[in-house]
Amino acid sequence: MESPHNAIDRLQALFSKLPGLGKKSSGRLVYHILEADPAYARALGEELLAFHRSIKRCSRCGSFTESDPCPICGDPSRDNSEICVVERAQDVRVIEESREFRGRFHVLGGLIAPLEGVNPENLRIGELLARVRNEEVREVILAMNPTVEGDTTALYIQKLLKSSGVNITRLASGLPVGGDLEYTDRLTLSRSFRGRTKL
Amino acid sequence: MESPHNAIDRLQALFSKLPGLGKKSSGRLVYHILEADPAYARALGEELLAFHRSIKRCSRCGSFTESDPCPICGDPSRDNSEICVVERAQDVRVIEESREFRGRFHVLGGLIAPLEGVNPENLRIGELLARVRNEEVREVILAMNPTVEGDTTALYIQKLLKSSGVNITRLASGLPVGGDLEYTDRLTLSRSFRGRTKL
Repeated sequence: MESPHNAIDRLQALFSKLPGLGKKSSGRLVYHILEADPAYARALGEELLAFHRSIKRCSRCGSFTESDPCPICGDPSRDNSEICVVERAQDVRVIEESREFRGRFHVLGGLIAPLEGVNPENLRIGELLARVRNEEVREVILAMNPTVEGDTTALYIQKLLKSSGVNITRLASGLPVGGDLEYTDRLTLSRSFRGRTKL
Repeated sequence: MESPHNAIDRLQALFSKLPGLGKKSSGRLVYHILEADPAYARALGEELLAFHRSIKRCSRCGSFTESDPCPICGDPSRDNSEICVVERAQDVRVIEESREFRGRFHVLGGLIAPLEGVNPENLRIGELLARVRNEEVREVILAMNPTVEGDTTALYIQKLLKSSGVNITRLASGLPVGGDLEYTDRLTLSRSFRGRTKL
């Protein structure tokens, strides 16, 4: 039996701290790396060592970037009049990949969830209000997920921005494209009725 | 849009080379690491950089180890008369965790699969024959998976060892404990009939 604290066990234990990786799947990764070209482990190791040094938060929008301001905030061709507010930095990437939006982003860094200790002051809401005041913003698009926390946070921000005169919108919620009425939950169906569009 | 060759993309691309990790799940890991304590990325990076230096193959059984011979081959309390033959190094760990076997191991490093270019001479079969000749082996337990390749390899080794006079056994194949006849494939069911035991 291998001793409990050898390199294989240590690497497996580290991998199993990542989301979605249990003990078994982590073990599979470790043995895969062992049997792969050592250059792979070296490349992955070096990226990880440099990772937090090379990535910081954009001081304007709060997304992760290697340069500050980030490429989106620094791009003069983007529309300053629209800010899309998202929960997490990775949501920026998802929306960018849809090529649907050419304005600016604002990353909240979470959603209001008092039971988990996340209150409005823990999020980048003050920074959003300052941007709405100081930049020539005409529309704030609230793109948080359609969950209880997402809706609560959207409602909270909507109240704060009401007096600013800016347009506040929320991403439409309804049936996913290619979805099936039969397999749609009641809440989604109800939202798709309330948000129905005229043809 | 972030430039395509930044640290986030590079780390995501490296993770997505691992088995079971696609582009989406790799992205999730990368952002998890970004938001986690930087000490985590550092620890994982350092383990990976040192990994291939600290782990080698045991010159006797072929499993991965930090010391040569490995702790199992070097343990004088284990039974020299039994060798359990497995496909891969990680199988040693699985069998050790069952605490069912107190003999020695031998890792083949694969299974015979001519279509994939794996022939007997690519496996550690010669080393197994030498061990059977030189160590006081009385039983060779063939513990390859019950697949076509596993059965082929077992048959091949059985023929080579026939003249040596050693006992050759194969792990029983049949219904998994807690399994259901209804969901058992025909081949497994057929094997469980042929291997039925008297009560």
